[in-house]
Amino acid sequence: MRVQLSDRAVNIPYSPIRKLLPFEVEATKRGTKIYKLNIGQPDIETPAPFFKALGNDLPEVLGYGPSQGIPEFRKAVSDYYRSLDIPFEPDEIMATIGGSEALFFAFLSVANPGDEIIVFEPFYTNYSGFAVYAGINLVPYTLKPENGFHLPARSEIERLITPSTKAILSCSPNNPTGTVFSVEEMQILASIANDNNLFIISDEVYREFSYSGEIPPSIMSQQSVWDRAIVIDSISKRYSACGARIGNLATKNKDIYDAVLRFGQARLCPATAEQMGAVTLYEMNHEYFDTVRKEYSIRRDAIYEGLMKIPNVVCQKPSGAFYIMAQLPIDDGDSFAKWLLTDFSFEGETVMVSPGAGFYATPGMGKQEIRLAYVLEEEKCTRAMELLAIAVEKYRTEVMK
Amino acid sequence: MRVQLSDRAVNIPYSPIRKLLPFEVEATKRGTKIYKLNIGQPDIETPAPFFKALGNDLPEVLGYGPSQGIPEFRKAVSDYYRSLDIPFEPDEIMATIGGSEALFFAFLSVANPGDEIIVFEPFYTNYSGFAVYAGINLVPYTLKPENGFHLPARSEIERLITPSTKAILSCSPNNPTGTVFSVEEMQILASIANDNNLFIISDEVYREFSYSGEIPPSIMSQQSVWDRAIVIDSISKRYSACGARIGNLATKNKDIYDAVLRFGQARLCPATAEQMGAVTLYEMNHEYFDTVRKEYSIRRDAIYEGLMKIPNVVCQKPSGAFYIMAQLPIDDGDSFAKWLLTDFSFEGETVMVSPGAGFYATPGMGKQEIRLAYVLEEEKCTRAMELLAIAVEKYRTEVMK
Repeated sequence: MRVQLSDRAVNIPYSPIRKLLPFEVEATKRGTKIYKLNIGQPDIETPAPFFKALGNDLPEVLGYGPSQGIPEFRKAVSDYYRSLDIPFEPDEIMATIGGSEALFFAFLSVANPGDEIIVFEPFYTNYSGFAVYAGINLVPYTLKPENGFHLPARSEIERLITPSTKAILSCSPNNPTGTVFSVEEMQILASIANDNNLFIISDEVYREFSYSGEIPPSIMSQQSVWDRAIVIDSISKRYSACGARIGNLATKNKDIYDAVLRFGQARLCPATAEQMGAVTLYEMNHEYFDTVRKEYSIRRDAIYEGLMKIPNVVCQKPSGAFYIMAQLPIDDGDSFAKWLLTDFSFEGETVMVSPGAGFYATPGMGKQEIRLAYVLEEEKCTRAMELLAIAVEKYRTEVMK
Repeated sequence: MRVQLSDRAVNIPYSPIRKLLPFEVEATKRGTKIYKLNIGQPDIETPAPFFKALGNDLPEVLGYGPSQGIPEFRKAVSDYYRSLDIPFEPDEIMATIGGSEALFFAFLSVANPGDEIIVFEPFYTNYSGFAVYAGINLVPYTLKPENGFHLPARSEIERLITPSTKAILSCSPNNPTGTVFSVEEMQILASIANDNNLFIISDEVYREFSYSGEIPPSIMSQQSVWDRAIVIDSISKRYSACGARIGNLATKNKDIYDAVLRFGQARLCPATAEQMGAVTLYEMNHEYFDTVRKEYSIRRDAIYEGLMKIPNVVCQKPSGAFYIMAQLPIDDGDSFAKWLLTDFSFEGETVMVSPGAGFYATPGMGKQEIRLAYVLEEEKCTRAMELLAIAVEKYRTEVMK
C-alpha cells in the first residue's frame, strides 16, 4: 500500500519563478547566454562590512541566540526606523529568517486555519506558499495595469470582507508591479482596517526603492492603526543580501509581539552570524541607498523604454521596487517564458522572465502578463528588451499563428 | 474595538525551556553563579573550519541559493550518511533551517490540519510548536522512566492509531530521555508503519551521541520502510553549531521530497554562508566525534552519580544524547525550577534545570521530573549536582512542608 501525502503537500505549487530552472539549466548547457530578469536577485555587491562581520566577530561557540534576535540587531533596526520617522523601539522588533518567516508568523498570529486575508493581486507569489503553511485563504482584489495598479475606492475593497476576514495584506513599493502607494492610499487601508476591525500586514521590504525622490509612506504613517499594523521587513533587497536570510517583523501591538515571540521560540532563533552582519549594514550611512537608487532608476528607464518599443505592450512606468508587470501581445505567459528558454535564441542569447499568472490568485488572470526584475546593468537591460521584442514577434508568427 | 489574535496565537505556549529566562537574568544581576543545565546548548567550541568558511569563501553578491540547498552541502551530507551505511543520495537530501524546519516540513507533508501524529512522550518540547504551526495533533504514548523510556509491545502503540493517524514521530538518541532505541525497536516502528500505512518521521540529530560504543540504529536500518521514512537531521548538536541554523531532511520517498522542495521554495533558501560552513564540518574526520563522545560520557557519569546520591531520585543512566530525565522527590518541577533561580542559592551558586511537564503532552504528566542537559565540564556537572541535592532538601523542608 502506497503511503499518502497530505492534501496540502499535493497542492502546494512549484514557485512559478523557480519552476523554469530546469529549462534554464538546459539552455545554459547548450551555450545560450541568458539575461535573467526572472528573479529579484540583485547583482549589486553585498556591502563589505557584512562579510567582515561574518569573518571576525563570532563567539567560539556559535550557540543559540535569543528567539527575538540579538539585542544589537534589534537596536540597529530600531535606529534605522527612527531615522525614517517610523517609531519602532527595539522591543517591538522581532528578528526573523528573512521577510518570509515574518510573513508566516504574521499569518499565524492573525488568522486561524480557514480564515481569510485580503490581498491585492498581482502579488508576490510566495504569499501563496505561506498561506498554505498557515492554512489560511488569500482573497484577492485585482488591481489593473491601466490604473497603474493603484487602489480603488474603499467600498470596492470592503466588498470582499466577510466574517472570516482577519487582515489586509499590502505591499508598497510593490513586487511585482513597482507601484508605490500614496499617503492617501495608506489612509484608505487604515480606515478599512479600523472600521472593520482588521489587522494590516504591510510588506515594506522595498522601502528604499522609490524613484520619485520621496520616501514611500509606511503604514506607520497612520497613527490610527499603530495597534493593528504589522510591518514586514528584510535586508535581502535593501542591502543585496538575499542569501543571508535575515528579516524582521515590527509591531506596536504587544499581544501580537508576544505571540510572534512564542511562535519564534519553537524554531529557536535566526542565524547569529548573519544578524551580526546585518547590524553592520543597518549602521551604514544612508547615502548607500542614493547610489543604489540611482543605479536602479537608470535600469528601470532602460527596461521601460525597451518595452515601449514593442507594439501592443501595456504597462506603466513603475515608481518603486525593481519590478515591472507588462502585458504582452501573447496568448500565455507560461508557454512564452518556457519557449524563451527551450526554443528561442537570437545571436546565441535569450531572456528569462517570470510568467504573470503566478502572481494572481484568481484563475485565468495575468495570462498575457510577464514580470521583469531589472536587476542587471543598463546595457544588459537594453539588450534584453531588444531580445524580448524579437522574441515576441517570432512567438506571435511562429507559435501563436 | 480591540483587534483579536488567532486562537493559535493565543494558545501557543512559551517554550518551557526558555520561559525561565527572566528569572535567570534577575539571578545573574544579583551576582548568583548559575550552572545552566536547562538547555541543550553545548559548550564545545564550534570547529574552526566553520568560521574559516564564513570568513573566506563567500561570493561578492550573497544571493539566493537553491531551495533544496547548495550542491556542495547536499553532497557532503550524503557522503557523511554513506560513511555510516545510511544510503542517501544528494538528491534525497533537502537543506533546512535547522532540524526545526525539517520537522515542520515533514509535518506539513504527511498531515492535513486536524490529522494526528503519534509521538512518544516525554519529547522535545518544540515538537508541540511545530504541531501548532501545522495545525496537527500530537497523540502521545507515555514511556516510563522505570523502563528506561524504551518502547512497549507494538500492540500498546497501535491502540493509539485512528483513521486520522498519518505518521509516527520517533527520536533516538532521545531528547529529553537519553534513551537509544535498539534495532529491535526500529523493527517495531517499521512494522507498525508498514501494517498501518503510516509515515515514520525519525529525528536522528543526536546520532553521534551514543556511549555504548555502537552507532545507534537509524530508521534507515529498516529497508522495509525506506519509502515511508523521513529522517530529520542537524549540525546544531553534532558540531556544536546551534546558532548556524542548518539542518536537513532526507527521504527516499520522491513524492515527499518533491513536496518538501515546493514547501521550501516558498521560503526561498537556507543561509548560503552557513551551508558552506557546514560543508567543512561534514568533511571533518570522524575522530572528532570520538573526542566529543568521550567528553560527554564523562559528564554523563558525573551527572548520573550526582543524581544517585540524592534520596528518592528515579532515573536510568542514559545511553545517548546529552540529556537525562530525572524524577525528583518534589511536588512540581515548574515551581522548583523557578525557585532555584528566585529563592535558592548556596555559596552564591545555583543550578538551572528544565521542568519535566513541558516535555509531556498529557496533562499532569512529568510534574515531578526535570530534564538536565549535561553540557558543562565534569567538575561543573559534579558541583551542580551537589547544589541540586542541597536544593531538593531545602525545597522539601522549606517550601513543600
